Amino acid sequence: MNLKSKIINRKASIGIIGLGYVGLPLLIRFSEEGFQTIGFDVDVIKVNKLNEGQSYINHISAEIIKTTIDNGFRATSNFSKISNVDVMLICVPTPLGVHNEPDLSYIQSTLVSIEPYIKENQLFVLESTTYPGTTEEEIIPFISNSNFIVGENFFIGYSPEREDPGNQDYSTKTIPKIVSGYTERCLDLTKTLYDQIVDKTVPVSSLRAAEMTKILENIHRAVNIGLMNELKMVADKMDIDIYEVIDAAATKPFGFTPYYPGPGLGGHCIPIDPYYLTWKAKEVGMNTRFIELAGEINTAMPNYVVYKVGNALNNIGKSINGSKILILGLSYKKNVDDLRESPSLVIMDKLIDLGADIHYSDPYFDRIPPTRKHNLELVSEILNKESLKSVDLVLLTTDHDEYDYEMILKESAIIVDTRGHFRDENKKIVKA
Amino acid sequence: MNLKSKIINRKASIGIIGLGYVGLPLLIRFSEEGFQTIGFDVDVIKVNKLNEGQSYINHISAEIIKTTIDNGFRATSNFSKISNVDVMLICVPTPLGVHNEPDLSYIQSTLVSIEPYIKENQLFVLESTTYPGTTEEEIIPFISNSNFIVGENFFIGYSPEREDPGNQDYSTKTIPKIVSGYTERCLDLTKTLYDQIVDKTVPVSSLRAAEMTKILENIHRAVNIGLMNELKMVADKMDIDIYEVIDAAATKPFGFTPYYPGPGLGGHCIPIDPYYLTWKAKEVGMNTRFIELAGEINTAMPNYVVYKVGNALNNIGKSINGSKILILGLSYKKNVDDLRESPSLVIMDKLIDLGADIHYSDPYFDRIPPTRKHNLELVSEILNKESLKSVDLVLLTTDHDEYDYEMILKESAIIVDTRGHFRDENKKIVKA
Repeated sequence: MNLKSKIINRKASIGIIGLGYVGLPLLIRFSEEGFQTIGFDVDVIKVNKLNEGQSYINHISAEIIKTTIDNGFRATSNFSKISNVDVMLICVPTPLGVHNEPDLSYIQSTLVSIEPYIKENQLFVLESTTYPGTTEEEIIPFISNSNFIVGENFFIGYSPEREDPGNQDYSTKTIPKIVSGYTERCLDLTKTLYDQIVDKTVPVSSLRAAEMTKILENIHRAVNIGLMNELKMVADKMDIDIYEVIDAAATKPFGFTPYYPGPGLGGHCIPIDPYYLTWKAKEVGMNTRFIELAGEINTAMPNYVVYKVGNALNNIGKSINGSKILILGLSYKKNVDDLRESPSLVIMDKLIDLGADIHYSDPYFDRIPPTRKHNLELVSEILNKESLKSVDLVLLTTDHDEYDYEMILKESAIIVDTRGHFRDENKKIVKA
Repeated sequence: MNLKSKIINRKASIGIIGLGYVGLPLLIRFSEEGFQTIGFDVDVIKVNKLNEGQSYINHISAEIIKTTIDNGFRATSNFSKISNVDVMLICVPTPLGVHNEPDLSYIQSTLVSIEPYIKENQLFVLESTTYPGTTEEEIIPFISNSNFIVGENFFIGYSPEREDPGNQDYSTKTIPKIVSGYTERCLDLTKTLYDQIVDKTVPVSSLRAAEMTKILENIHRAVNIGLMNELKMVADKMDIDIYEVIDAAATKPFGFTPYYPGPGLGGHCIPIDPYYLTWKAKEVGMNTRFIELAGEINTAMPNYVVYKVGNALNNIGKSINGSKILILGLSYKKNVDDLRESPSLVIMDKLIDLGADIHYSDPYFDRIPPTRKHNLELVSEILNKESLKSVDLVLLTTDHDEYDYEMILKESAIIVDTRGHFRDENKKIVKA
């Protein structure tokens, strides 16, 4: 049976490399549709958890993992099993280096790990977000060096992930998926593959166009959020509530889409992906000034929040140094257990450096797991009358739905609100 | 009968000052709802045309003007008639001065013209787009100086126009309208007034918030178009078609809104309004860097188009100097007869300066009316096989639906397409 028939008949075995926020839901989708799945991850702890039927992602239940196991799923750190799959989907991280340059090391180490085990007639699809040209410049030559002829006896596609953890309206199945291939046959196989698990695939003319599409989506968000962050600071000086203005503008039924300011960007996409284009654009002598301006403004937002906290304390004759501050919300966005690039951690670090006595409360984090940049040994406090009354200032950084906002408003002395949650005028509330 | 009852019972007489793209449709709406209307304009030609039942705006028919006259409408340049109205709505232009500073001279001369004739219990509403603070800082003191007490015996509101000429989906009636007032009573009257003619009014808390709302809508567009213009140039260097990428990104059902690049900004709003905030922000020590970057990039787009035209001619061994170029489209956007700030005129000027033999064809303009910045004595050519074959290059600047694109593609030697109209690959087409 050829690969296309295998895919259509759900006889193709699917290997997913990288079992995080992207890879795991994707694997589950294939399993739901009756495909044999195998998950690869270098993190042995993750692999063991999955094989024991546990989940490490809040919105994916252990039940689902167990069902997937019942349907034949296994996780492994042993890449020799790549030789057993028909399709491999690469969902590894593509972070930034310390100079905001693309860090493709996870893709490169994946290539090295799989290289001894790839075989004829496999389909390889990259899902990781990356700059236009990555698949053609980094992956095609690698595979060609292994004596395969891409498009003839090995197939390569690119299909960017569009996961949005916490989104109640759209899931992996219902989000249309961009597909592309190195050759016509590569595209046909890639499209056929995703047609089995998503409602709609969107083919584009080249790998580069598909790579650029994902980057554009995130540039759009980074720039629009940056613009609102800048205008928030301008409006504040003019004594205008930017949230009221954004909501009013959003009543225009065309030509305007609301984006909201915040304490800074977070997550694995918006603060990172745009710089991939910035880096690549230099190669063709171009600058991406909107991206750089958005990056500059968004990155500086935690400083603005700290400045507002300092002002609010100053108004009651206190310094940050020695003040007791309760931070509400660690996640980079509400209702998710995701700390990646969260501005809350940056703000926390800055306030600690300034001598504040920092406490936090977050229903998603009993303690703060160490991240690459932060190591804060704190445990979550119970949010109640006492914990609110015991601090000088409450800083709302993530507007989780779980918080009792009525109680927060009633019991707090000062609330610095970075999310525009409290819309009514109240002397206690400082908009930041 | 008090003013509010007069409004509700359609007994209030409505004076509209400034009978352009905003004032005229607004006046017609009030007339349709049974209000007595009187139109004021300093332009005697406009006034005479209207009184003779003629229209000077393409999408407003002479029929409608005649019906409005039958319902009692008259236009005048005689501001003494202000003493006959209950409500005056100010729809005069708010352009930029040569240093991109707000030019409020039309508002100021309106105030001077009406000042001798205003009387107690009139409602004055500004519709012109302007920076936050204008109504409070320019209009309230002027009226207060005339011995009225605003909110007691004279009422002032601000309600920004949201006209979108050529929009087939929304009209004056169906576009929600932001309303604001200097006092609660001013707001109540302003809201009551517009409730008679639009489906939905949106009250906001202050005049400033309403002024900022309109500016924000246009900042959002100017910045998003600027971003796409920048990315168009980057993508072009990477051999990626930005239109394909934008359309692909637009398949994401959340978090992305498509905006399209072009030959530069036009119209009376997007290129102008954002600078009003830029100017005002300096007063509070703030910069609006996104607005300034968008302005810089958008303003430079005509140069990019000229560069692309030069390149395309150079490829066939010709210079711009001496080449015959047919420009398709004068309007700043398609299917409207509106030249204001149109980049086509800027491009035309530049090409003429470089020695090109310029011709144009536009179904909306038989000849080019002189504008403040341009005076080009050309007449529109008939678009046919001969006119297309007789030129070295066809430059599509406005993608009017009326053009026969099949013929253009067939008969032209080179097409420089600034609108992404021609999506398929074709050696004739240069994307610019």
